[in-house]
Amino acid sequence: MSSSFGHVFRIHTFGESHGGGVGVIIDGCPPRIPLTESDVQHELDRRRPGQSDIVTPRKESDTAVILSGTHDGLTLGTPIAIVVKNEDQRPGSYDEMAVKYRPSHADYTYDAKYGTRAPSGGGRASARETIGRVAGAAVARQVLATLAPGLEILAWVKSIHDLEAQVDPATVTHEQIESNIVRTGDPVAAEKMIQRIKDIRAEGNSIGGVVECVIRGCPPGLGEPVFDKLEAELARAMMSLPATKGFEIGSGFAGARMTGREHNDPFRMVDGKVRTTSNRSGGIQGGISNGEDIIFRVAFKPTATIMTSQETVTSTGENTELKGKGRHDACVLPRAVPMVDNMAALVLCDHLLRQRGQCGQ
Amino acid sequence: MSSSFGHVFRIHTFGESHGGGVGVIIDGCPPRIPLTESDVQHELDRRRPGQSDIVTPRKESDTAVILSGTHDGLTLGTPIAIVVKNEDQRPGSYDEMAVKYRPSHADYTYDAKYGTRAPSGGGRASARETIGRVAGAAVARQVLATLAPGLEILAWVKSIHDLEAQVDPATVTHEQIESNIVRTGDPVAAEKMIQRIKDIRAEGNSIGGVVECVIRGCPPGLGEPVFDKLEAELARAMMSLPATKGFEIGSGFAGARMTGREHNDPFRMVDGKVRTTSNRSGGIQGGISNGEDIIFRVAFKPTATIMTSQETVTSTGENTELKGKGRHDACVLPRAVPMVDNMAALVLCDHLLRQRGQCGQ
Amino acid sequence: MSSSFGHVFRIHTFGESHGGGVGVIIDGCPPRIPLTESDVQHELDRRRPGQSDIVTPRKESDTAVILSGTHDGLTLGTPIAIVVKNEDQRPGSYDEMAVKYRPSHADYTYDAKYGTRAPSGGGRASARETIGRVAGAAVARQVLATLAPGLEILAWVKSIHDLEAQVDPATVTHEQIESNIVRTGDPVAAEKMIQRIKDIRAEGNSIGGVVECVIRGCPPGLGEPVFDKLEAELARAMMSLPATKGFEIGSGFAGARMTGREHNDPFRMVDGKVRTTSNRSGGIQGGISNGEDIIFRVAFKPTATIMTSQETVTSTGENTELKGKGRHDACVLPRAVPMVDNMAALVLCDHLLRQRGQCGQ
Amino acid sequence: MSSSFGHVFRIHTFGESHGGGVGVIIDGCPPRIPLTESDVQHELDRRRPGQSDIVTPRKESDTAVILSGTHDGLTLGTPIAIVVKNEDQRPGSYDEMAVKYRPSHADYTYDAKYGTRAPSGGGRASARETIGRVAGAAVARQVLATLAPGLEILAWVKSIHDLEAQVDPATVTHEQIESNIVRTGDPVAAEKMIQRIKDIRAEGNSIGGVVECVIRGCPPGLGEPVFDKLEAELARAMMSLPATKGFEIGSGFAGARMTGREHNDPFRMVDGKVRTTSNRSGGIQGGISNGEDIIFRVAFKPTATIMTSQETVTSTGENTELKGKGRHDACVLPRAVPMVDNMAALVLCDHLLRQRGQCGQ
Repeated sequence: MSSSFGHVFRIHTFGESHGGGVGVIIDGCPPRIPLTESDVQHELDRRRPGQSDIVTPRKESDTAVILSGTHDGLTLGTPIAIVVKNEDQRPGSYDEMAVKYRPSHADYTYDAKYGTRAPSGGGRASARETIGRVAGAAVARQVLATLAPGLEILAWVKSIHDLEAQVDPATVTHEQIESNIVRTGDPVAAEKMIQRIKDIRAEGNSIGGVVECVIRGCPPGLGEPVFDKLEAELARAMMSLPATKGFEIGSGFAGARMTGREHNDPFRMVDGKVRTTSNRSGGIQGGISNGEDIIFRVAFKPTATIMTSQETVTSTGENTELKGKGRHDACVLPRAVPMVDNMAALVLCDHLLRQRGQCGQ
Repeated sequence: MSSSFGHVFRIHTFGESHGGGVGVIIDGCPPRIPLTESDVQHELDRRRPGQSDIVTPRKESDTAVILSGTHDGLTLGTPIAIVVKNEDQRPGSYDEMAVKYRPSHADYTYDAKYGTRAPSGGGRASARETIGRVAGAAVARQVLATLAPGLEILAWVKSIHDLEAQVDPATVTHEQIESNIVRTGDPVAAEKMIQRIKDIRAEGNSIGGVVECVIRGCPPGLGEPVFDKLEAELARAMMSLPATKGFEIGSGFAGARMTGREHNDPFRMVDGKVRTTSNRSGGIQGGISNGEDIIFRVAFKPTATIMTSQETVTSTGENTELKGKGRHDACVLPRAVPMVDNMAALVLCDHLLRQRGQCGQ
Repeated sequence: MSSSFGHVFRIHTFGESHGGGVGVIIDGCPPRIPLTESDVQHELDRRRPGQSDIVTPRKESDTAVILSGTHDGLTLGTPIAIVVKNEDQRPGSYDEMAVKYRPSHADYTYDAKYGTRAPSGGGRASARETIGRVAGAAVARQVLATLAPGLEILAWVKSIHDLEAQVDPATVTHEQIESNIVRTGDPVAAEKMIQRIKDIRAEGNSIGGVVECVIRGCPPGLGEPVFDKLEAELARAMMSLPATKGFEIGSGFAGARMTGREHNDPFRMVDGKVRTTSNRSGGIQGGISNGEDIIFRVAFKPTATIMTSQETVTSTGENTELKGKGRHDACVLPRAVPMVDNMAALVLCDHLLRQRGQCGQ
Repeated sequence: MSSSFGHVFRIHTFGESHGGGVGVIIDGCPPRIPLTESDVQHELDRRRPGQSDIVTPRKESDTAVILSGTHDGLTLGTPIAIVVKNEDQRPGSYDEMAVKYRPSHADYTYDAKYGTRAPSGGGRASARETIGRVAGAAVARQVLATLAPGLEILAWVKSIHDLEAQVDPATVTHEQIESNIVRTGDPVAAEKMIQRIKDIRAEGNSIGGVVECVIRGCPPGLGEPVFDKLEAELARAMMSLPATKGFEIGSGFAGARMTGREHNDPFRMVDGKVRTTSNRSGGIQGGISNGEDIIFRVAFKPTATIMTSQETVTSTGENTELKGKGRHDACVLPRAVPMVDNMAALVLCDHLLRQRGQCGQ
């Protein structure tokens, strides 16, 4: 189910960089949830190109239109379709792409899989694909706001290249993150990161980084044993984002170097609630949320499009060279932040409804 | 679909440490694939307790019985049910568990989710749960051997605690890995790792580590754009294993510190095939296999059960202490290896059939 | 998955009579299948209001726009989104509907389920919902034409009210069916049926009828044992159409009055093929196609909207009366024909790809 | 998903007449539901061969064993596996079946689909397949008894051959139905039906019939618009049972001969509830339950195995003859009753949990 995500709250996305538009159907949404186009637009604007001078200067207004599933600003319980028109296509920028496989893009693998490929843009591998997810997640956020009002999802840039931000997941705010164009909770690191992106872009090169995400106020009991463990669903969600290379939760890869005595999270009663006094588990134990902060990190590789000549081959099997053209992000991290927090919203909304369906709470 | 995995080739598992047994139904298996109980037993024996003196000494024979779906050593195309009886239950060992939540186990979260919990063993969070997966994967391996004969899946211990093995994913063999009880491809590191596990166990402590896995000979074209990217499916598969804290593919988290110029994989024609001259992509581009080796790593935390007194709470909300008892792995890594390679087999088998269904190849 | 249909070839529909439009996403479509908007339009025109003087005179042009998933008239293998704008809404016609539950419509049950309801049109219970299915099926037809070129799906009106048509499923042609506006293969009955519909409409009343469908040239082996038997999938497909009250295959309800000796279909070899010399099975045995004609019938109730005063209640719980208004079909049968044959196309296309995925043929 | 049924409450079945056994995994079951093996056994005994002198005299004790998912007589929320061992196999009875295709059985179509087939029994087309469904439904019944205590599901034999029973769906009781071995609510018709079955069996022939089912006390709001209409799900469930040829709900095929004025169900307020004063809708409007009795009928063909010589072919393509052997039901209807009511329980339980998940009620 390539383009479907979720089990009870589920989205189906469509669309490429060429063609009439991109979008999403949200099925299984609870009725009577407040939802307007501006709720969706708000999230789309966070992922939009051209929003600051460290992201791609492409102008895409990405205007969300809700075609169905709502009435008078409330959901009806029936499928919600959201469409965003394509515009500002410059197929000319991509002429070589029809012939030469861009290194570390999906051109070759799409041809290998389908025996065909959209010759301009990047097909479903275009970053425009993520519009559908984000629009779907905007609806998930409305559901969460209604059914789990204390729940907060915050993501920020944890590192870019070798620059690391100091951010406290327990206290960082949305305002702090959005106060700088790189979207990190550490204003000092933010300045350095912005400069690094500009420098790298000036060289025609690109850089990667890490996004960190916290979910605060998640009720205990979400997630399921075995294959749908909450961390497994989050991992799938994040590793389905373009350019991701790694996922870790709680102690993550560092946890693999610890002993049990160092790693275990002791339980204590606090204000009548079962709490842990440390959180190396990252808020999930046995696949199920334990009420502590859920904390995970996602690694993003450097953007594949660079303005340097690279070795490649043509679709007809000849060695050649290719130099990147067009208007691309030298670093996807600032725009990756809303992708990460929105994918987390989709996972949580689905599991909240699944839990209600099976266990009635 | 908590206990289901796969879309065209799909498994449904069941079973806990208490009760009559554990097992799996495999649905959607192609017909006329060679399959006997000994094929299944072979994989179960690799994950079995008591197989060496660095794993838990529990004696569980874990004998696979195929109840349906085969005739004369060939699959029929109908559901294959495999059951493994439970035995060697010593509920006495677990008496305190009914009352006290074991730190960093799933006792508390199961209670939070279901309002109930099996008082002995660990319910679905028991390591016995993985029998069903491994048995299902044994069938997937038979399908892959028939339909994609060049495909090889090998996993090994990459690191334990701070000890790292030097293993070349391109050349390591199954025999090298299985030649030592810790299951790594580096005999020198193996000795050190074995000693480390014994030392840690003697202290009543436990340690974690990293498993690395390579898939060689994977045909290009497997995996799907968007949510079912091959790395997303592998990530979900691996993060659904007990005790996992992280997943990375190709360059992984290290890739997040690189520039595009360093990271991109150039294409070259080799023997008439499109190849990359480096493999930081880890064999997958745009979610779809590109024919290069698929390489990923999975972080496992230290075993939660340790023989030291730890702070915890009772299910009735009182602070208390708990000291681990029973026979446990001080390090799950040797037994995690067959879980990793077998989960990879499930993902690949499903995607091979999905590709055949949609694209006819 | 209320608005999803199919497993490998799957559609997701959306849209109501109010709002911006209706449509469908087709996911899992094979690549390189010829597909243009006119292929879709052709099927939409068959279900369109206003197409003849025995159907509702509402003017809806129902113009299909393909937003994604194709290039140069061929499918790409990625999701195909098709949208049809809503137009010609006259909310004024429906004013009473916001207050009074129309008898034998879905107004009350939508309120009971969702606690809300679109006050105009009929929400997802509007006949406009079927646009998404038919558009999706238009794509399925293109896949079938490419992968199973001998396969033909023909539906026709078998009866209206007490008038029955004489049609031979083995020989009837598309041209014969489409040669009359009631869509039956019997020109004599067609005349009577047309007159009956006009008479009933003149009375402000409505009538039901039966659609029969044959699938010729279906390869043996489609369908699956147990829950996804081909007849079970067809039954679900047909009973999901608005206004359906019954489904029967082969001998159907009449078969329940027969003895085994009368009912069994003997096998004979004919031209080297296994054939049956009668076809009370209706082309499916054990849930799987046997290569004979698949023949089934679907009962449609009379249209619920009639121009007579009827007893009903308000949404606030008061007894009242309601008289139908607006422009409705006095008999849905002529427009039900393309719904039936198109739902059959969806079922067959999915099972063709499922069979290829699992069994490689 | 051939052997899976349901979306939130879902079952996966396995097993054939040969091999070690048959059974089911129930996944998604709510926790803390009372469930013992005797609850399951009770339903299995209703479908068991050898229960009276008008059904097959095969002795199959069909003893249910619960392997997982319960503790102390309550469900845990984790998968429940139920296994029934095969016994009393007499492969000798079926020798010819390995070579000759039994008319109107699934022997040929299984070969056509899979290129292989279990040479004894009937593979998944054996009536033993239904054990898994019934066992799964026994769990669904426990859930319904807990969460929807007023809900009752009753099925009975409506007709056998040309004999019709007079049964009032509004008042018939389980005791009345089970008071005669043919399972009908009309004691006079019961006598005639029993005699007819005995007569037909004496002739080595077989007969079909119709089962009717009522669901009383179903809350309004179950079922979904579009593809998962409650009647569509019931139709799929019933048409997935062996030997079924037709399904109709409410007015059914007779409704196709009515006018809207005759067919529509007026609404009236009764005791503060919205009720209909007739029930030609059969308790479902727009795919969603309206709180009235849900009434449907299922047509069963005569048993395919008859004791007369019939024309058939061998699996190697030669014309031949075959005469039925072994111990078969001359009429499946008495044993079809518990299959029908149990499949209805599966549909309702799933939709009850789906409704709770999406709409919170």
